[in-house]
Amino acid sequence: MTVGIVGAGQLGRMLALAGYPLGLDFLFLDPAREAPAGKVAPQICSDFTDAEALARLARETEVLTFDWENISVDALRALPKGAHICPPISALAAAQDRVSEKQLFERLKIPTTRWHSVESRGELDRAVQEIGLPGVLKTRRLGYDGKGQRVLRKPGDVAAAWEALGNSPLLYEELVPFDYEVSIIGARSGRGEVVTYPLNGNVHAEGILRLTRAPYGPAPLQRRAALYLRRALEHFHYTGILTIEFFVRAGKLIANEMAPRVHNSGHWTIEGAQTSQFENHLRAILDLPLGSTAPRGHCAMINLIGEMPGRNSVLGIAGVHLHDYAKTPRPGRKLGHLTLVERSAALRDRRARRLLGELAAAIRIP
Amino acid sequence: MTVGIVGAGQLGRMLALAGYPLGLDFLFLDPAREAPAGKVAPQICSDFTDAEALARLARETEVLTFDWENISVDALRALPKGAHICPPISALAAAQDRVSEKQLFERLKIPTTRWHSVESRGELDRAVQEIGLPGVLKTRRLGYDGKGQRVLRKPGDVAAAWEALGNSPLLYEELVPFDYEVSIIGARSGRGEVVTYPLNGNVHAEGILRLTRAPYGPAPLQRRAALYLRRALEHFHYTGILTIEFFVRAGKLIANEMAPRVHNSGHWTIEGAQTSQFENHLRAILDLPLGSTAPRGHCAMINLIGEMPGRNSVLGIAGVHLHDYAKTPRPGRKLGHLTLVERSAALRDRRARRLLGELAAAIRIP
Repeated sequence: MTVGIVGAGQLGRMLALAGYPLGLDFLFLDPAREAPAGKVAPQICSDFTDAEALARLARETEVLTFDWENISVDALRALPKGAHICPPISALAAAQDRVSEKQLFERLKIPTTRWHSVESRGELDRAVQEIGLPGVLKTRRLGYDGKGQRVLRKPGDVAAAWEALGNSPLLYEELVPFDYEVSIIGARSGRGEVVTYPLNGNVHAEGILRLTRAPYGPAPLQRRAALYLRRALEHFHYTGILTIEFFVRAGKLIANEMAPRVHNSGHWTIEGAQTSQFENHLRAILDLPLGSTAPRGHCAMINLIGEMPGRNSVLGIAGVHLHDYAKTPRPGRKLGHLTLVERSAALRDRRARRLLGELAAAIRIP
Repeated sequence: MTVGIVGAGQLGRMLALAGYPLGLDFLFLDPAREAPAGKVAPQICSDFTDAEALARLARETEVLTFDWENISVDALRALPKGAHICPPISALAAAQDRVSEKQLFERLKIPTTRWHSVESRGELDRAVQEIGLPGVLKTRRLGYDGKGQRVLRKPGDVAAAWEALGNSPLLYEELVPFDYEVSIIGARSGRGEVVTYPLNGNVHAEGILRLTRAPYGPAPLQRRAALYLRRALEHFHYTGILTIEFFVRAGKLIANEMAPRVHNSGHWTIEGAQTSQFENHLRAILDLPLGSTAPRGHCAMINLIGEMPGRNSVLGIAGVHLHDYAKTPRPGRKLGHLTLVERSAALRDRRARRLLGELAAAIRIP
């Protein structure tokens, strides 16, 4: 049984490493010659929109999935009828466009930020008037890791933001003064089985996830987030892993965005949960029974960004699990992550603080 | 950093899957076209004794190791001086010959069975006279999974056993009426760091390991086994994972054999220990700090032999982790294994019994 994956980044790499023990084979499609997943599985080196390459990927595999949501919905829709694509293209399309995403949240009664679509300078002025400052101007498409965003704090910021982003369709939304950020990850299989992982508590800096702790937050928040996730999973007759990121303000969840794929905030599940998000994504798309999402302890995941610490120094720290994506270092690039699984939240936080100190990472643990 | 591995079986496959998260690359050498590790990493398809292929493997990798001990010591010794081979060839040579192995145990004061080397029919008669019946006649070399062995229970068995095995140098040893079987696995790194895993309690049938439970046995036995293992590790200035299998009779350890490699009785460490035997083997041979061998719970590992159960049925059982080696089924062949990690030994045993029942495996849990 071969799984085809569009995108051969670290998420694809970890999908393959989770799938090999299940006896699965993999075939990736990615234009990058040195893609992380291409070092552990065969890869078709071709553009994501190359119809012929996509058709070959579909032909040579039993099911198609993706590790990257900024791929062409049109190219996937153009595949021959027999191609089995999971998660559904409709969910991918909704996640690719911030306006569709907001409309989806509203339709499913998932609280989200106040927002306004922006297609002209005049519309931006009206949006700022209506929603107020501070706010965030974002491109509707192709944003990730804080790319394609400008924060507007005072009226004078409007012109520069329009200058920077005005070439693309945009969305303006309120900047939420949140208490903290969480995400929830869950899976639905073709037979309708649904599982959800414990909430992740996330810390971002410069738009990039730096630290996740799980399980995180009070039980009512967990239940509420799981309820929202289930609504989205069922709305799409979803198969695979789906992630929703939330702001938390005064104990309430405010949906920020969703990702129709395994998610950076779920990397702790490799060591920290009974079944990893990667294995459960594969189980879901192959219509196998889903695995337990119970945590094995109190986990912290720290992203390694821009440069890798030495293997010797990191592996010398008790309890640290290293995940090196085999990528060429570049400022701001996610190169790997570290995971801790501890007996108590206090111990986990103490060790995570020490680890962040040794990495000289300027991240404050709340 | 690329690790070269002679032998591309399931042990090699699991080494690669443990090494990818560390950012390592792998290159295998194995004559089998459909080798399990060859499906997850590049493979040189060539005979184990092919000097040119071995030289290429050494040239293209930073360190050479093996997943199979019946490889040619002479071929390894013939490699250019620069080749870095771990574990040491001396340990491999000792493990390949049952007489050297017995002599080693005696030299290191590790209790073992009474034994006699046998090179003629006359010597066999004298060995049976001296050691008595029942006993086991074994080929000195190339024995594994019960192959190359005959049990002698009565004087009339001697002729048939000689007929079957007399072509090769042999060893005759007493048949130990053991209470149970255990093994100990540990690692030593180049810098002399040593770690040992909790004892494994093993159940064999027809010479093949069926079930391992860990941690197993009383603390004094664990300490004693760890002491013996350390003696062997230090004797060889060993680097990598070493395994010793013991019989236990009246609370005493009697060494049966050793394996200079990761071992089937340590497969539970993938989910069940802080650091798997596979990761610690790689850390040891790359002279990285060794990882914690602390167990994450009470583990059972069940081998899947001869035929694979359906993925759907196995993954539907709570807590089961599947490892499918992607091998073609054949009677008596190890095709995969299942692992359980539970909160208590009682729960582990209950679940393991139920699982063995569902697999229709005729294994009794003591």
